[in-house]
Order: sequence, then C-alpha cells, then structure tokens
Amino acid sequence: MDLRKINDFAIKTIFHAGDQIRESFSKELIIETKASANDLVTNIDRKIEQYFVEKIKELDPSHKILGEEGMGDKIVTLDGPLWIIDPIDGTMNFIKQGRNFMISIGFFVDGVGKLGYLYDVMRDELIYAIKGEGAFINDQQIGKLKPLKIEEAVIGINSSWVIPNGKINHEKVVKLIRTVRGTRSYGSAAMEIALVVTGKLDAYLSMRLAPWDIGGGMVIAQEVGAVVSNLKGQPFNLLNHDTFLIANPSIHQLLLEHYIELKDEKQHSN
Amino acid sequence: MDLRKINDFAIKTIFHAGDQIRESFSKELIIETKASANDLVTNIDRKIEQYFVEKIKELDPSHKILGEEGMGDKIVTLDGPLWIIDPIDGTMNFIKQGRNFMISIGFFVDGVGKLGYLYDVMRDELIYAIKGEGAFINDQQIGKLKPLKIEEAVIGINSSWVIPNGKINHEKVVKLIRTVRGTRSYGSAAMEIALVVTGKLDAYLSMRLAPWDIGGGMVIAQEVGAVVSNLKGQPFNLLNHDTFLIANPSIHQLLLEHYIELKDEKQHSN
Repeated sequence: MDLRKINDFAIKTIFHAGDQIRESFSKELIIETKASANDLVTNIDRKIEQYFVEKIKELDPSHKILGEEGMGDKIVTLDGPLWIIDPIDGTMNFIKQGRNFMISIGFFVDGVGKLGYLYDVMRDELIYAIKGEGAFINDQQIGKLKPLKIEEAVIGINSSWVIPNGKINHEKVVKLIRTVRGTRSYGSAAMEIALVVTGKLDAYLSMRLAPWDIGGGMVIAQEVGAVVSNLKGQPFNLLNHDTFLIANPSIHQLLLEHYIELKDEKQHSN
Repeated sequence: MDLRKINDFAIKTIFHAGDQIRESFSKELIIETKASANDLVTNIDRKIEQYFVEKIKELDPSHKILGEEGMGDKIVTLDGPLWIIDPIDGTMNFIKQGRNFMISIGFFVDGVGKLGYLYDVMRDELIYAIKGEGAFINDQQIGKLKPLKIEEAVIGINSSWVIPNGKINHEKVVKLIRTVRGTRSYGSAAMEIALVVTGKLDAYLSMRLAPWDIGGGMVIAQEVGAVVSNLKGQPFNLLNHDTFLIANPSIHQLLLEHYIELKDEKQHSN
C-alpha cells in the first residue's frame, strides 16, 4: 500500500471539500436535529460526507468508511483499510459562528492509524500525519511536545463535566481547574485535539466521543508524542463511543491518577 | 471633533500594530509575570501600547490614554477625550497559541463611547463601530442581534466561575449551564465580546474585568443592540475593575434575574 499516494489523494480531497464548505455560506443551510435538540446536522455535513465516500470508493472500492452521517459502511470490525470521517466536527459552531469547526479524517489499516488529518476550514490550516514520518502543519514539521508542569497547563474541557454530572466525579475536576493555569472550551473535539497536538493546549478530555471525533487526531497524536486513551487509561474504542483523554505525555498519567474518577465504569464499557 | 477622521487614524494605527505583532513571532518573546503567576505580560504588549501612545499623542496631545500596561496617563476622571487601550487582550493565548488574542480600543468623550475597535490580529478581522453610524466587520455592516430563547443560547464563561468561588453563587451558574445550548471559553474577554456583538455567542460574563478589556467592545455593543452592564445590572465602571455581562438583549435581564447572584456586593463595588 502506497501511503504517500493515499496521502496526496486525501489532502487534495480535503482541500476540495473545504472549498465546498466555504462556498456553502452563500447558500441556504438546512438544519435538522439528531439524537437531541442540541445535536445538529445540516445538508452540508451530509453533502461533504457523501463527497468523501464517493472519492474514496473511486480510489479503491475495497476501502471501508465509517462516517458520522452514516453514508459509508456498517463497520463491525477494524480489519482491513478503514477511513474514519467527520465531515464537519463542531456543527453548532459551523451554523452559529461560521468558524471553529474542522474536517477530521483518519485512515487505519487493521486498526493501526496510518494517516491523520485535522483541517480548520476557515483558517485554511491543515494538520496531518503519516505514521512514522511525523506530523505537519501546513507542510511545516511539528516538533515533539515539550514537558511541562500541571500548574502550567492549559486544558480543554467543556463546562458540562465541571458541574455535577452522572459520568465523572466533578469534585476532582474542580481540583483540576484550581490546579492548572487555565481552561478553554471551543465546541469542537477535533479543534481541541488539533490544539493539543500543536502544543497550544496541554490536554483535552471528554466523557463521550465517537470514533469520527478523534480518528484523525489519534494518528497525529502518536507522531508528536501526545498520549491518547480513554478515561480509564485504556485504548479508545474505535468501534463505539468512549470516554477520551489526549494530553502532553508529561501530564497524561497524572491527570488519570489524580483528577479523573469515573462514577460507574459499566456506563463507559459499551 | 471629526470622528470619521479619528476613525481613519485609529484603523490605520491598529493595522500597523497588527503588522508589528505578526512580525514579532519571528523574534524573541520576553515573558514576565504581573500580579500573579498566571497574569503574564511580554515585551510585545509593552511595545504595542507604547506605539499607540506615541501615535495618539502625535494626533492630539490633549487626548488622554488609559492603557493596560500603564504607558498612558493616570486617569481619575472620564472627562474629555479618552482612549482606553488593551494592546494584546489574551496574552496567555498570544504566548502559548500565537492566536486567539485581540487588540481592543475604545475612544470616549466625557464618558460616552464614540469609537470602538476589536481586532483579531491573526485572523486579520476588524470589528469597529462609530457611535450612531453602526458597527462593521471588515467594512461590512453588522445587523442588529436577533432575539432568541435562553435554551438556544451559547454562552461564554470561564470554568473558574462554574466551580465554587468567592464571587458568585455557582449553583445558579450550574443551573445556567444546564439550561443553555452550550458554553464556550476562549481566554480573551475581547474575543468573547467580539463573538457576542456578531451573534456568534449570545452572552459572555466575568467576575472581574478591567476597562481596557471592554472599552472597545462597549461602543460596538450599543450599535448592534447588545446590552452591557456589570453583574448588578448597573453601568460598568470604566475607572476601575468591575463585574461584567454582555448579552443579546432578549436574554440580558433574564440572565441577571435568574442565573446570577453575587455573593458579597461589597467585594464588587470598588
């Protein structure tokens, strides 16, 4: 398998998808809700996912596709070549802000991340990685993350996990917020992961993410030394929703041990 | 006083300051702490404030200047023409992210906001307003904010105010977070105000801001119909630090009445 060739294909396709999204601002946006009133999808999310599916099937019909909007394949195994796609991560930002959303794409073979892409469409900023060859931001190599103390860290976390909630002991999160230098919240997991892999944030955690939220970021993370796991410290489950932590390697274990306590492990095992 | 002429001067000077900041990324950054370990200042903050002070004194030596880094005048009254300047709002973001910081400038005469500027240096996006003539984003007029329900609102709030703290009843903030569609936190008051005046956020609140954090935004707010107050619903004190709320007019009063309760009013009166 020629990864460089697939990488060229992916970058070209992502840039063309970005063009289509930017052009969409002059056209009508059709907004629907999914699982809840705050879980939004637009005609553009669907159109862009469809575009990726068509292009990938043209490239190689044997490649499987797991996409947020369900236009790819029904995936029950990580065997073989698999694309994991979020056409617009941060749909609420896309609708309300016209910014702060990302295209997130990962390419896996037998469950091993080979290529990863996080594209900030409105900044026209592409972060990508090829397994074993490093990570790049607009073609400039990204260095390995530098160690830091927890007191110097800036952490991405949504305020939903800071208040009492059913998933995590919020008292420990309160302790975390009192310890770190600052927190941020951008409303796009892929954007927060992009900030961590470039050292602009030092960690990001969430109680519930999908494979397409993190597939692209996972591959980039390993090239810069960022550590990815679920909140039990295990590998993130790419076939289902899971809890999620990405962090600078100098604070990943510390975060798990001192600041994160899941309330009921059973809730997070499926 | 020819406001249009002063506006032309301000925009030209802000763009030139932006050029200097962008160029600074290739040079050495000297970082110092101010009041606390997390209150940072750099040589660039100081250089840019000094640049504004020089340019304004060239324009009209009778204009007074209140600047974050203290290079302007000692201000004890709002009488006369007054510039309120933050050369880099979001210094921690400037240092760590190289983005998500703003130049914020307001021009007041006898305490009345006449001109306001919020410049996102890295996006090269200027929001400005001339009193009575409207607000503009990159020269395109910004419409009045549209009403919405609190359940549809996205709110800017730092997680420090979501956890138990000495300033505000966090239980009410928890209720707010459970009510709204989402929250965001960007680490720059001027950026969050810029998002509110363009309808990309629906409110932003903080327990402690300085005049230079909000001087530019206040003038823009009145032109788009955003409501600005302190957290008691009174006018923000431009001569001191104060609590702060900017919101879409359809939810400003509701936020004050149902979701904000200061713990000790004396703490916030000076």
